[in-house]
Parts: sequence; C-alpha cells; structure tokens
Amino acid sequence: MGKVTDRRLVVRLRDGVETRRPDTLVVEEPLEIRIGKRSLTVTMRTPGNDLELALGFLFCEGLIRDGADVAVARHCLDGDGNVVEVWLADGVPPPVTDPTRAFSTTSACGVCGKTSIDAVRTASRYPVADDPLQVDAEVLAKLPERLRTEQRVFDRTGGLHAAGLFTPDGELVCLREDVGRHNAVDKLIGWALGEDRLPLSGHILLVSGRVSFELTQKASMAGIPMLAAVSAPSTLAVDLALESGMSLVGFLRPGRMNLYAGAHRVIR
Amino acid sequence: MGKVTDRRLVVRLRDGVETRRPDTLVVEEPLEIRIGKRSLTVTMRTPGNDLELALGFLFCEGLIRDGADVAVARHCLDGDGNVVEVWLADGVPPPVTDPTRAFSTTSACGVCGKTSIDAVRTASRYPVADDPLQVDAEVLAKLPERLRTEQRVFDRTGGLHAAGLFTPDGELVCLREDVGRHNAVDKLIGWALGEDRLPLSGHILLVSGRVSFELTQKASMAGIPMLAAVSAPSTLAVDLALESGMSLVGFLRPGRMNLYAGAHRVIR
Repeated sequence: MGKVTDRRLVVRLRDGVETRRPDTLVVEEPLEIRIGKRSLTVTMRTPGNDLELALGFLFCEGLIRDGADVAVARHCLDGDGNVVEVWLADGVPPPVTDPTRAFSTTSACGVCGKTSIDAVRTASRYPVADDPLQVDAEVLAKLPERLRTEQRVFDRTGGLHAAGLFTPDGELVCLREDVGRHNAVDKLIGWALGEDRLPLSGHILLVSGRVSFELTQKASMAGIPMLAAVSAPSTLAVDLALESGMSLVGFLRPGRMNLYAGAHRVIR
Repeated sequence: MGKVTDRRLVVRLRDGVETRRPDTLVVEEPLEIRIGKRSLTVTMRTPGNDLELALGFLFCEGLIRDGADVAVARHCLDGDGNVVEVWLADGVPPPVTDPTRAFSTTSACGVCGKTSIDAVRTASRYPVADDPLQVDAEVLAKLPERLRTEQRVFDRTGGLHAAGLFTPDGELVCLREDVGRHNAVDKLIGWALGEDRLPLSGHILLVSGRVSFELTQKASMAGIPMLAAVSAPSTLAVDLALESGMSLVGFLRPGRMNLYAGAHRVIR
C-alpha cells in the first residue's frame, strides 16, 4: 500500500529568512477502478482504503446495491497498487454508461438542478425524511474539534479532507481522509458497505470543508439523515437536503452553527 | 444567465441564541458540455462564464488547441442556461473517449503518478521550463490579499474558489470564481483562449485553496510558468511542477511562503 504522506524539499521564506528543509505533503496518486478487466474511471486519491473507495464510489453511483452485489474486490495483482478490480456477482448488470454521465439527460437542454435532485431521489434506496435522529446542539458543536483531533495527518500537511461518521452521542464511528473530499466520503461509505452497516440511519456525517451537491448526494444514497460541515454549503446542496428530508448543518464551530435543512433534529 | 449567489432561509445558532434569516449561498448548478449535439460531460459549477468554462475544459483536456479549433460555442437556445454546445471547426477530430479517461492506460496495471505526469508533459504544447519570469517575493506575498479584495462574492458566501492571473508586477489580469476550484481555472484559461492570449507565458496563476495534480496540469497546458496557492500542494502537484519546470508556491501568506519548485523565479 502506498504512503499517505511523503516528503519533498522546500525553500521556506519567513519574514525574509530563507531555510531549506523537507516538507511533509499529502500523497496524491491516480486510482483506476475497473469492473472486471474493463476500466471504468480514474480518480486522483490519497492511497489507503482503496477497496473502500472503489466500493463506495460504485455504491454512490448506483452501480452496486450492497456487498452481495460484489463477487471480488482486489488490487490488481501485478500492478503498482493503483488499480482496483471489482468483479460483480452473477446477475448484477455491468455499467452501461460512464458514471460521470449519471445525471445527463437524454432530452434536449433539460439539465438543471431539479433534474439532478430528482435523479438522486429516485436512485437512493434509503429515504431519510422519517429518520428520528435527535442531536444536542452542544454535542454537535464539539464534533469538528473531535474530528480534527483524530485527523492527525492534517496537522502535518494541511492538505487532507476528512469525513467522520458520528453517533448522536458524539462518538466517532469511522474516519476517512483523502486529498479529495468526495473520495473521503466514498471511503467512509465503502467501509459501511463492507461492514454491512448500510443504511447509516441515525448517524451524522461530518466533513471538514464545504458541502457540494455531490457530497449531499452521497449522504443521501447511504441513508444518512444529517450532514454537517465546517464551512459553507452550496444552494443545490441545501435544495437536495430540503427535498430529501435530510438535516444540513453548515459553518459548524464551537458555540455556533447554521441549520439549512431539517433543523428539527437539532435540540436547542 | 443564472445567478452567482442566491438566498436560502437558515436557522442560525450563536451561543445559544437562535435567529432565522435568509443566508446568501453560492449557486451550484449542473452544466452539460456538448460537442455539437453529443453530450460530453456534466460538471457542477457556479453559473457565469459558461462558454469560457467549456472552452477551458476542452483545451485543458487537449481536445482543442486554440480558438481556431472552435466554429461556434453557445448556450443551447431552447434550454435553461445549463447546456453549452461547442461545434468544432472543420477538420478538428471529435473526442473519441471520455475526457475523464485521458490518463487511463491500456496496459495492465500501469497507472501511476509518473504515467500521469508523462501524459501531461506530452500533451502540453507550451513548455514552461525556460520561461524567464522573475517575481519579487514581496510582490508575491501581497497577491492573496489582492485576490481576496477583488473576490467580493467570497465574503458573502464563504463558498467560492478563486483563480487569479497576475503579471510579475502584481497586476491582476483576470479573476474567475466557481464553487469548484478546477472550474475557476478552466474559466480563466477559457477566457485566455477566447482572447487569443495563450500561452500565458510570464504570468502567475494564484488559486485560493490547495493545489492538486489537476490544477497543476491545467496550468501546464496553458503554459503558465508559476502556480501559487494559499494552501498546501499535493506530492503529485509538486512532482509535475518539478518535471515540467514550473514554479510552485504554497502557503502563500503575508511575510511567508513555501517554494516547492522553480524557486529561482522568486527574487529574495
């Protein structure tokens, strides 16, 4: 398995003083995901939890439904660790289109935010609107600090996104990191799939940065009723959360937070 | 044209005090890029400068070489503003593969960072190794503040990435913003292509966040000799910069910076 961090020589300038020393950086390497021997996609990722990443990606794209849909997932044996082969179980249809095209419509000029939201809502097997999750605001506000404490790599490189799965009591269940924020979430959901824990009802997903539509989509696919972030959401992330009945928390910091959707799950 | 920001109702908690008010968020909408009538890809982006985004994307993927390769680029006339059609000039070969697959190799298990770097180096028409750019460290250190000042949307939403093109004297030539950092750079490079300014020799590209391989790749394609960022680069970004002779500056702040590649272009 590849390294998560590596060193490169850097010239540091600090108030006119110049030093040369090795600097620790987050590793970025391509991962090719194959269905059998056929290449499906290449994603730039931080090595580690590659099989989780592949399975989480396939699940979030709606290509597999659960672990039973996968016969074998493994690193390509004679490779450099950057190719994962996923062999689907008998009867599971192989992807017919590129997954980046999942929300491309066939009708003329029809793509819009609503199209995307409807596509996700149709694809998810796990509705979250009726999830009875309740979280105390004070517990919620402490989660970013907990994530940061656990996320030791960040302190050394400043370059890793984190995704953490928490219980309503604030217990960290799973933490995954990656140079790409979508990869960190795919790894976490791939872990849950491998552990047969899907859907992730009653849990909170915390991400270290901003919330895009894509992250909200992944949370929706995994049946996660609350998505929280340290920074800002986009309009389409909020719209998807509202339409799917997910709680969306932004700018989560000590003593403060913004509730963009599903505020009833946060106890004040 | 769609809006760059929009409002959503938010419940704000601040030290136990709850208020409800509209919050300004960055707009995220899908953009479908077509070659003629054929769908090529869908990217989530902030509306605005869509044609630049499409052309910059196509250029960075090596599908067009300059403005002369494009017969027409326009929004789909009967659509909702989220579809761009690019008609290639006579004799320009249409893409034969999905651009997300550009670095997928056909040999077994051959994908690695070196493969990716070699692919970019081969694809770029504009070598930067001999670019005589020289920038004063003090001028460089002031660029992030300049970018932030110009980037008015950021202050309202906290959700936009910025890409700014600067001269060695610190003059801002072009600024583009997007919810996706790669989109901001594509818009900027698409602008340069439309203005017949490629290659961007002698210029500095400053990005507001971290530096991935993908951003370095785009800078390389556009012939930009110096890429600077407010935050951390990845290993593969540094490796590509070193191999292509590009200068890479990270953690650029008042009074400090890290020079990861091409330090000779920064005057101390």
